[in-house]
Amino acid sequence: MRKVDTFRFGTTVSQVCIQSEVPALDELFTGDQVSPGGVLLVCDTNTASLARNIRGDLPICTLPPGETSKGWASIEVILQAAKAAGLGRDGFFIGIGGGVVTDMTAFAASVYMRGARLCLVSTTLLGMVDAALGGKTGFDLFDMKNLVGTFYPASRIFMPIEALKTLPRSEWKSGMAELIKTAVLDIDDQDGEFWSLLSALQRVFIEEQFPQNLGELDRIVACISRSVRVKGRIVEADPHETGEVRMLLNLGHTFAHALESVAVLGRLSHGEAVAWGIVRACELGCALGITPEDRAAAISGLLRAFGYETAAPHPMMQDRETFMRALGGDKKKKGGTLMFVVPGPKGAQLVSAALIGQTLLTRIIDGGYTHEHQ
Amino acid sequence: MRKVDTFRFGTTVSQVCIQSEVPALDELFTGDQVSPGGVLLVCDTNTASLARNIRGDLPICTLPPGETSKGWASIEVILQAAKAAGLGRDGFFIGIGGGVVTDMTAFAASVYMRGARLCLVSTTLLGMVDAALGGKTGFDLFDMKNLVGTFYPASRIFMPIEALKTLPRSEWKSGMAELIKTAVLDIDDQDGEFWSLLSALQRVFIEEQFPQNLGELDRIVACISRSVRVKGRIVEADPHETGEVRMLLNLGHTFAHALESVAVLGRLSHGEAVAWGIVRACELGCALGITPEDRAAAISGLLRAFGYETAAPHPMMQDRETFMRALGGDKKKKGGTLMFVVPGPKGAQLVSAALIGQTLLTRIIDGGYTHEHQ
Repeated sequence: MRKVDTFRFGTTVSQVCIQSEVPALDELFTGDQVSPGGVLLVCDTNTASLARNIRGDLPICTLPPGETSKGWASIEVILQAAKAAGLGRDGFFIGIGGGVVTDMTAFAASVYMRGARLCLVSTTLLGMVDAALGGKTGFDLFDMKNLVGTFYPASRIFMPIEALKTLPRSEWKSGMAELIKTAVLDIDDQDGEFWSLLSALQRVFIEEQFPQNLGELDRIVACISRSVRVKGRIVEADPHETGEVRMLLNLGHTFAHALESVAVLGRLSHGEAVAWGIVRACELGCALGITPEDRAAAISGLLRAFGYETAAPHPMMQDRETFMRALGGDKKKKGGTLMFVVPGPKGAQLVSAALIGQTLLTRIIDGGYTHEHQ
Repeated sequence: MRKVDTFRFGTTVSQVCIQSEVPALDELFTGDQVSPGGVLLVCDTNTASLARNIRGDLPICTLPPGETSKGWASIEVILQAAKAAGLGRDGFFIGIGGGVVTDMTAFAASVYMRGARLCLVSTTLLGMVDAALGGKTGFDLFDMKNLVGTFYPASRIFMPIEALKTLPRSEWKSGMAELIKTAVLDIDDQDGEFWSLLSALQRVFIEEQFPQNLGELDRIVACISRSVRVKGRIVEADPHETGEVRMLLNLGHTFAHALESVAVLGRLSHGEAVAWGIVRACELGCALGITPEDRAAAISGLLRAFGYETAAPHPMMQDRETFMRALGGDKKKKGGTLMFVVPGPKGAQLVSAALIGQTLLTRIIDGGYTHEHQ
């Protein structure tokens, strides 16, 4: 099984390969010679064995797992390993792991000698449907989400389905919300095929197991593939988010980032925050007359069916002042004005915060809107 | 007096304004509104008063002067100031100073929220003829020159000639070598006009004074303007140095970087190293039959006339092992092979180190070649 899609993000061509297995070294370089400028594999302790399987004698840089790696200190570790491995500016960084590893590897590659070559092997659902595709790299600084980053698409992105076999339930849950978000954005899903595929995944998801059943495996591959295409087309239209198209991918994220900023570290996954944020965006859209009530109900219903906390206020939201400050400080701004994304009759659209009364926003965040409409 | 040139570096349009005075705030934003996404001025202690003159009530981030500022710590200082100033991704970073300030401001802008807007006011000769134009940003790490960096051209670059009035002699000397280098690369200088302009600058240079004489001032402006055009055209042809055109700007730099790596910090300016490196490149070119002997003599002669140390071995070259290691570790590589740039019958061309015997290289570095040909 191998599905290949090619996108053009600005001046970079990104090829995505969804396939059964983690690629071997020669597959990573199909069409190129094995890089004469050198190769560095970057992984975390979760993916170190995958990296060694690609080829054990290549230099490997292993980061500690998780969000703690997201900072300049880890970037220095990667850059130092690259220098020690003798990478030239035509050398290859290969990042193997989830979103943190691929974001960090991509940022390091983007600044190493002003930009080296980059290939990513995404090993988590969240990575496949979001982080690995589209060129966003970066890390948090001074308590601001991705304050530091670059646009630097990988030339090749591999999505080996076998890597999902050992994914813990929390990781599935984190990725699924982004998958549902992408389905909401899919303006070509007139017949609801993507939506039906997703709905059918509930059983797998609830049973916490990698599907043994080939039909279900096919459905997962189809969802990832469809999601890649939807996100890829959006990024192609606006690779550097200079227009308004790419901002649509932030559906639910303005609320989600604010929630993440008040949550206890490690107690809330990105996907859980996004799921909660999408429901808030639906409520906002309904209140503004943009989101049809039945669409909002379908979206919230599917998220609840997957076990996400969708009620407001969120149990982790005690610190409301920090939450509101984070909501106002989000970097998705145009001309100094915060932008929200809400589902439309199909797809989604942008709404300037200038058009939204503070009373409405407070009511949504405090759960007032939910209660009135249930 | 105002000379405007416009270049297209990849997807960015860079406008260069050579003018008498430091621009006022409204000039910085001609054609734009004053940025609704916020403005941050970045300077060092040498240029703080210029920054305040632009407008005193804007947020200003002041770095310590000189090479000590070139590191991640300073980038964090700039990013923190930008966040405190409330800059959005559509906010403007304005860097005012020499090469260090403009390199650091440009790097910070390139990674702030994945790329904010950038305007530079270059206040040194070296900055005007080299650092500020063409989008190279970055800083050293792990003893490697510009190991970390991005390509991020400013949308506007101002070169206020009045800023040169207070330039110390050492700064003139550092810039002049790059100016001579650019004249060597100028394939359109058939009539030798650029070369004659430069030669005529010797008196100003030796007398260490900002020219009071309008004719001499005009000559300096003409040299800077010509240099901007030569460099601009080269960068337009190869903005990300993916081809071989932009590498030509490294004439003398492979030798210069190696020399800088063994020199006592602060005892050798970049220009002095480049001047010495250009003479080595001339010798290499002559030995390979690429550089005509009379052209090599003219280039070396002009550099000596400006008071540069051109003899090999250089007095600061005691540590030859470190020098040779640095020469081999330079990042100007293609396919893992070091590249040298040597003057041709006109302009310059690339030579792969693979074609150069170690014996020849050693002879040039040790001064054997100079002695044989004098």
